Amino acid sequence: MSSPSSPHAGLVEKVFRYMDLHQDEFVQRLKEWVAIESDSVQPVPRLRQELFRMMALAAEELRRLGASVDLEDLGSQQLPDGQTLPIPPVILAELGNEPGKPTVCFYGHLDVQPATQADGWLTDPYTLTEVDGKLYGRGATDNKGPVLAWINAMSAFRALEEDLPVNIKVIIEGMEEAGSVALEELVKREKDRFFSSVDYIVISDNLWLSQRRPALIYGTRGNSYFTVEVTCRDQDFHSGTFGGILHEPMADLVALLGSLTDSAGHILIPGIYDDVAPLTEEEKELYGAIDLDLEEYRNSSRVKKFLFNTKEEILMHLWRYPSLSIHGIEGAFDEPGTKTVIPGRVIGKFSIRLVPHMNTSVVEKQVQQHLQYIFSQRNSSNQMDVSMVLGLHPWIADIKDHQYLAAKRAIKTVFGTEPDMIRDGSTIPIAKIFQDIIQKSVLMLPLGAVDDGEHSQNEKINRWNYIEGSKLFAAFFLEVAQLHE
Amino acid sequence: MSSPSSPHAGLVEKVFRYMDLHQDEFVQRLKEWVAIESDSVQPVPRLRQELFRMMALAAEELRRLGASVDLEDLGSQQLPDGQTLPIPPVILAELGNEPGKPTVCFYGHLDVQPATQADGWLTDPYTLTEVDGKLYGRGATDNKGPVLAWINAMSAFRALEEDLPVNIKVIIEGMEEAGSVALEELVKREKDRFFSSVDYIVISDNLWLSQRRPALIYGTRGNSYFTVEVTCRDQDFHSGTFGGILHEPMADLVALLGSLTDSAGHILIPGIYDDVAPLTEEEKELYGAIDLDLEEYRNSSRVKKFLFNTKEEILMHLWRYPSLSIHGIEGAFDEPGTKTVIPGRVIGKFSIRLVPHMNTSVVEKQVQQHLQYIFSQRNSSNQMDVSMVLGLHPWIADIKDHQYLAAKRAIKTVFGTEPDMIRDGSTIPIAKIFQDIIQKSVLMLPLGAVDDGEHSQNEKINRWNYIEGSKLFAAFFLEVAQLHE
Repeated sequence: MSSPSSPHAGLVEKVFRYMDLHQDEFVQRLKEWVAIESDSVQPVPRLRQELFRMMALAAEELRRLGASVDLEDLGSQQLPDGQTLPIPPVILAELGNEPGKPTVCFYGHLDVQPATQADGWLTDPYTLTEVDGKLYGRGATDNKGPVLAWINAMSAFRALEEDLPVNIKVIIEGMEEAGSVALEELVKREKDRFFSSVDYIVISDNLWLSQRRPALIYGTRGNSYFTVEVTCRDQDFHSGTFGGILHEPMADLVALLGSLTDSAGHILIPGIYDDVAPLTEEEKELYGAIDLDLEEYRNSSRVKKFLFNTKEEILMHLWRYPSLSIHGIEGAFDEPGTKTVIPGRVIGKFSIRLVPHMNTSVVEKQVQQHLQYIFSQRNSSNQMDVSMVLGLHPWIADIKDHQYLAAKRAIKTVFGTEPDMIRDGSTIPIAKIFQDIIQKSVLMLPLGAVDDGEHSQNEKINRWNYIEGSKLFAAFFLEVAQLHE
Repeated sequence: MSSPSSPHAGLVEKVFRYMDLHQDEFVQRLKEWVAIESDSVQPVPRLRQELFRMMALAAEELRRLGASVDLEDLGSQQLPDGQTLPIPPVILAELGNEPGKPTVCFYGHLDVQPATQADGWLTDPYTLTEVDGKLYGRGATDNKGPVLAWINAMSAFRALEEDLPVNIKVIIEGMEEAGSVALEELVKREKDRFFSSVDYIVISDNLWLSQRRPALIYGTRGNSYFTVEVTCRDQDFHSGTFGGILHEPMADLVALLGSLTDSAGHILIPGIYDDVAPLTEEEKELYGAIDLDLEEYRNSSRVKKFLFNTKEEILMHLWRYPSLSIHGIEGAFDEPGTKTVIPGRVIGKFSIRLVPHMNTSVVEKQVQQHLQYIFSQRNSSNQMDVSMVLGLHPWIADIKDHQYLAAKRAIKTVFGTEPDMIRDGSTIPIAKIFQDIIQKSVLMLPLGAVDDGEHSQNEKINRWNYIEGSKLFAAFFLEVAQLHE
């Protein structure tokens, strides 16, 4: 559906037709990749071997397309139990190196979350199974499908003997689900080598906001994760023999955690909203245009009532305002039954999702000061320790950047519509890492539908999303090349 | 050290001398009983066999003294996992049935808490080992030692061919540490049979408050155990994708739990103190007389600072005022690490130790009303459910009752001192069960020292406590008989 005036209309038609005709081959390749249990989460030697096999297979595929491929050895990792496991290599691949063309670098990962049929899968998670146009299998949408869609796009030009409009680089890791172990160091090391010629970075590791309307993602929230530990002594007490005479650590902790938010979800830590970017009219308009059926969203979330009643408020509170969640308590009685214990030492855990332009070290200070104040008001004889154990910055892209415009045009070409301009409320550290280290524009261009079930049972990618997504990347190559000129 | 004016001074001397001379036999018998791993807590067929062996051995011992012994079959118990295990029989024994004598019934148990040397025992827990006058072994003080002390007292009269001053009944169970499974039903069933002639009930299943000064226990606190469940949905959320738009169940729960007490440990539930017995001058005096070195108590508890600074306040808040402890939360994130979960359904657990004249059903209503009020103030869309899952009444004895006076005199005879008149802050349901069903006076007459380590590693009973305790029971027989006339 490329507009006839487009200079590359004929080429687009040709590439898309090729992809439609070869879609069963594309699905077959995805089936072969899904068949490998490349689970990086369970630290088991057998699964690590599968990860190595997965990376080797992907490297072979890229080499077949003529790319030069390096498998970067990242050594091994030591687990908390003392066990040592090898880290699967990272693929750094390159196809084309022509000075006149822009260089687009794709990031993806080929490791998956654990899955067994016993978890509630209707089909074997490692046998890609098509039902009503849905391709069920672990990793189908997260992230093997999108990685293959990128390769499919490369392969179409290659098969048609058409010149690739961009220089392509690819970085593929096998440890994303386990926290991208050692990746940041590799990116730093390769900053002036592999990444030196990169102009644009594309990540396709999220989902659309709807089932049918494509999306571009221009921001993710950060996360400051806190522990607050209250200690009376290192041993528990019996509530019969000590109840009534102690400053009980749980009472202190519950008061501390209760001081963090009000019942409307507003964060009560003084100063916490000071650095939140003001809402511009321009940004506000983006929210109105987004395709979200609130009733459907509420039903599919199985939530009776949200804190807010409008689409705009809900999306803003997921994406552009900070939120605070209490995750749980370590050290207290957490099992079924009726144990009469006074826990001697408890650790509360909560985290704050950060938005532009909040800063983790400012937030750390604000949280420390607030909790110290609340604790001091209690005159407790216990000891309190607050730590920020994780501090991940928010990420935001400039949506007026060339590659965002190129992606919008490519979406228009493939899907005949404008994308939802969305953010992701969760934290994807890799975007911020690329932005900070390589200092180039990062684009998140998702292919999967909102109901794909990343990380959960019956993960799938629709055949339509997979094939149209492959076309989208091909169209994107052409649009980026044109805008870059 | 019986006063020369006592009518049974000569008999006392004779019995005590016998006991001093035969103390090694008494210790040897305790050694044989401790050697049986009668652990009722771990539901394992092998340990159940040991419990049956233990009950049979005790029955044999009682028969040797001439008692008539029934082993009451309690059938079997079904565990949560579907497994069925036989319940060890309860011993109902009887020695003497003379109309002119009072009938004293002793309650004890022969099951023990689990113990392995790997837990940190310095000696094998099932080999009674004497070091510096301390007899180390699982069950030595809880409760095999006191049961044998009672039997030792009976056996001394028997061996000396002296008439027992009281009719004696004994009820011994093997499931106390597992919650006295099926015992209450048995007591109800035997109310008008085995228990019909009982005048006094003696329990010796606690400890003194000090290392050297004996104690009488005249009260225990009850316990109302509550769960408060807050549900958004039955599945957890990811704090990235839902943080900011939910009434988070943990925020509700933390507010509910935080509303229960202030930082001084005072319970904030309206009306909760209404039924607490007023403090009389007479009762107040009991506290002043108690032997407690506060500094030593604080040090041995390893607590920096208590809520109160005087012995009297501390003891009163452990024994005669209610206390509320938050035990923990089920359903939230309770492990080490940094999981970014919004728990979908959480269950808070707390309990209130009840004192005379609080009533479990009144307390249940007060807690329900209070939490419903607090929850309604939050306008949360979550569902809250409050349940009292355990309601155990407090127990208090009349310390002017004959058997209390008899016990005091016996203590004076054996130890040459007045006892500490104490209570136990924890809940011992059996006292209240006996009191309510049999409607006779219940006395708690402990033998062990404060540092005996019930339930913990290196449990012990001092040889001195064990032998003097055996004498104490013998002297008690004589005093009860005399006062009862």
